[in-house]
Amino acid sequence: MKQSVLFTRAFKSFPSDEEARGIRFLVRAGFVNKEAAGVYSFLPLGLRVLRNIESIIREEMDRVGGQEILMPILHPRENWEITGRWTSFDALYKVKNREGKEAALGPTHEEIIFPVIKKMVSSYRDLPVYVYQIQDKVRDEARAKSGLLRGREFWMKDFYSFHRDETDLDGFYEKMKKVYLGVFKRLGLKVLVVKASGGTFSKYSHEFQVLSPVGEDLVLYCGKCGFAENKEIAQVKDGEVCLECGGMIKAGSSIEVGNIFKLNTRFSEPFSVAYKDEEGNQRLVYAGCYGIGVSRLMGTIAEVLSDERGLIWPELEAPFLVHLLELDGGRGDVIYRDLQRSGIRVLYDDRKISAGEKFAEADLIGIPWRVVTSKKTGTKLEVKARSSAETRLVTLLNFKRLLKTKR
Amino acid sequence: MKQSVLFTRAFKSFPSDEEARGIRFLVRAGFVNKEAAGVYSFLPLGLRVLRNIESIIREEMDRVGGQEILMPILHPRENWEITGRWTSFDALYKVKNREGKEAALGPTHEEIIFPVIKKMVSSYRDLPVYVYQIQDKVRDEARAKSGLLRGREFWMKDFYSFHRDETDLDGFYEKMKKVYLGVFKRLGLKVLVVKASGGTFSKYSHEFQVLSPVGEDLVLYCGKCGFAENKEIAQVKDGEVCLECGGMIKAGSSIEVGNIFKLNTRFSEPFSVAYKDEEGNQRLVYAGCYGIGVSRLMGTIAEVLSDERGLIWPELEAPFLVHLLELDGGRGDVIYRDLQRSGIRVLYDDRKISAGEKFAEADLIGIPWRVVTSKKTGTKLEVKARSSAETRLVTLLNFKRLLKTKR
Repeated sequence: MKQSVLFTRAFKSFPSDEEARGIRFLVRAGFVNKEAAGVYSFLPLGLRVLRNIESIIREEMDRVGGQEILMPILHPRENWEITGRWTSFDALYKVKNREGKEAALGPTHEEIIFPVIKKMVSSYRDLPVYVYQIQDKVRDEARAKSGLLRGREFWMKDFYSFHRDETDLDGFYEKMKKVYLGVFKRLGLKVLVVKASGGTFSKYSHEFQVLSPVGEDLVLYCGKCGFAENKEIAQVKDGEVCLECGGMIKAGSSIEVGNIFKLNTRFSEPFSVAYKDEEGNQRLVYAGCYGIGVSRLMGTIAEVLSDERGLIWPELEAPFLVHLLELDGGRGDVIYRDLQRSGIRVLYDDRKISAGEKFAEADLIGIPWRVVTSKKTGTKLEVKARSSAETRLVTLLNFKRLLKTKR
Repeated sequence: MKQSVLFTRAFKSFPSDEEARGIRFLVRAGFVNKEAAGVYSFLPLGLRVLRNIESIIREEMDRVGGQEILMPILHPRENWEITGRWTSFDALYKVKNREGKEAALGPTHEEIIFPVIKKMVSSYRDLPVYVYQIQDKVRDEARAKSGLLRGREFWMKDFYSFHRDETDLDGFYEKMKKVYLGVFKRLGLKVLVVKASGGTFSKYSHEFQVLSPVGEDLVLYCGKCGFAENKEIAQVKDGEVCLECGGMIKAGSSIEVGNIFKLNTRFSEPFSVAYKDEEGNQRLVYAGCYGIGVSRLMGTIAEVLSDERGLIWPELEAPFLVHLLELDGGRGDVIYRDLQRSGIRVLYDDRKISAGEKFAEADLIGIPWRVVTSKKTGTKLEVKARSSAETRLVTLLNFKRLLKTKR
């Protein structure tokens, strides 16, 4: 894409109403626009990142047998009455239509998916079932802050598994723990698997936490063996010896980017989601749910993978793989066409502005590979990775080879 | 995908709470699930159709220079106060958060996109700008009915164009009329371009209407020259002579699948969206908006392209291209793997149910190509298009060739 065509622009100064570094860069570089506290629009660069994160998650959910669906935002009040959450769910937005009928705006979708499963599942032969969606959610958060990290409206992947018994659920739950680690690894994030409260209907749950000073969670973890517990349930303290390995327990702020939860029969009971086993007995379905904050991940990556000059996207999430900068006497058009023909995602800065401005903006936007063509580079290109200080002069052919071997 | 794995099922009987044929088939075949009046979940088969429709629309919007973005559902009340639509927009859902702040749930996005454009555009050099999104919308409809045709929650593509003057807007508006015709043609739908009211801020608008007895619109059209006007503004009557070509005017119920609208300065004025022209004068931006009902299109196709046995999807929208049925003595597994390796989207009915059930369900689901392998077909396949009664016995290789030449 030509940058002269891109309708967003980078702003000279940071937004005055954002505190965390990641969101300050995202707004300043034109990835997102703030519409209200905790509510953002995704502009072309931001939407590309969001879609890339979605694709990675989708691939991994499909691989584990997840069947993708799409549920609505408007949920009938009755469904939430059945589970008792119409009154007990703290952050539930409620709307009334012109006939006076009330609806909840979906902050999570157990109240929709369980009745669907009830219609579809009747025998042990129909189980297990794995479904998921990547969908826009709303929550009336008490403190919507830190940009995309705690939004009132946010994109989430929610996955639900349905099983014939607890053993089958337990096995799948452990499998999903590994799948989740794989997702975050592909995204280039270091996560802690943190033991957390299971609420009223399960012994415990697990959260996937990324250490960051702007995180709202507090975890106690061992840097040596990976033991980690959420502050809420932790029995160890900062500076204590890790009982698992003898290492040292540390306390750290963190961002929760995912969680997995055994629901057991908490929702199949009120909705009577049951199946007939081999002996003809009706049995309740066991279920688990598995969330990943998709837009929150975008905010997290912006936060933890950035430096003082701007964002640093990993290749998979990046809005473009290559940022081509044409300076005086360069051969931008020819190189742009060539890279495009090779199927490489390129943002081409073809604007008539100073070299200094182009460099600063490239650092701000954070595309993995910066490529300069100018009088000075001649028939070659000056190539620099955003994550490195080193520049090198290579031919276009060798640059394309470099990109290929990297993948 | 193996049908034994697909978690949805076809129901023996029609839903009791749906009237139109299309939605009755969609529910019965497990494409969608009704959550409330006008609110549906898209299940795996339905989501595939929705995504396919989206892809076609996205391609055409990108081709005309549209830049994709994604705006939120929660809109600050202030934005709607500025345009006066907080009170005048009839079907606006409103919610209050815990702090008492009110928000509108987006039924359309002028109130969000204009302030974004204001931040990004300052000079005549920045224009024109074309942006669009494919997004979940809600409207507090008085009569939510006919399934996906008039929903309270629905997926829509909304495109907004911004221009330096009326002439530029007019030119683009005419271009979009052609683009829209191209989209509907690719989708396999016959549409009428219907002149309609332009509301208070434009002389007229254009609607894209598909004739159907279940449609809620009434259009007067000439079958010979294509002249068409919405009943609301029409000056001709059923049975009259067409003034354009001497043909005969007919009246018909129809479904509005898209519309295009000149907004002129209706929204740039209240939001002060202006640019500096070559002489340094501040001028208001001219705008147009262009909508397509994405989920409504799915409902429309189900309605107009179905027969008494079930749905009939065109290849591009179909959830799968091939429905492979294994009957007694067939070689389903081998053929399934082969088709998959060839990159063909196959639903493989590997279930142990009767041939009659398989045939009936295949007709209900409406995948374009039904392929049977059985003892009788031997090393060959019995191939039948859903839209035809003719069956033929061909080799797998020739069937694949047939699919290729079709595209």
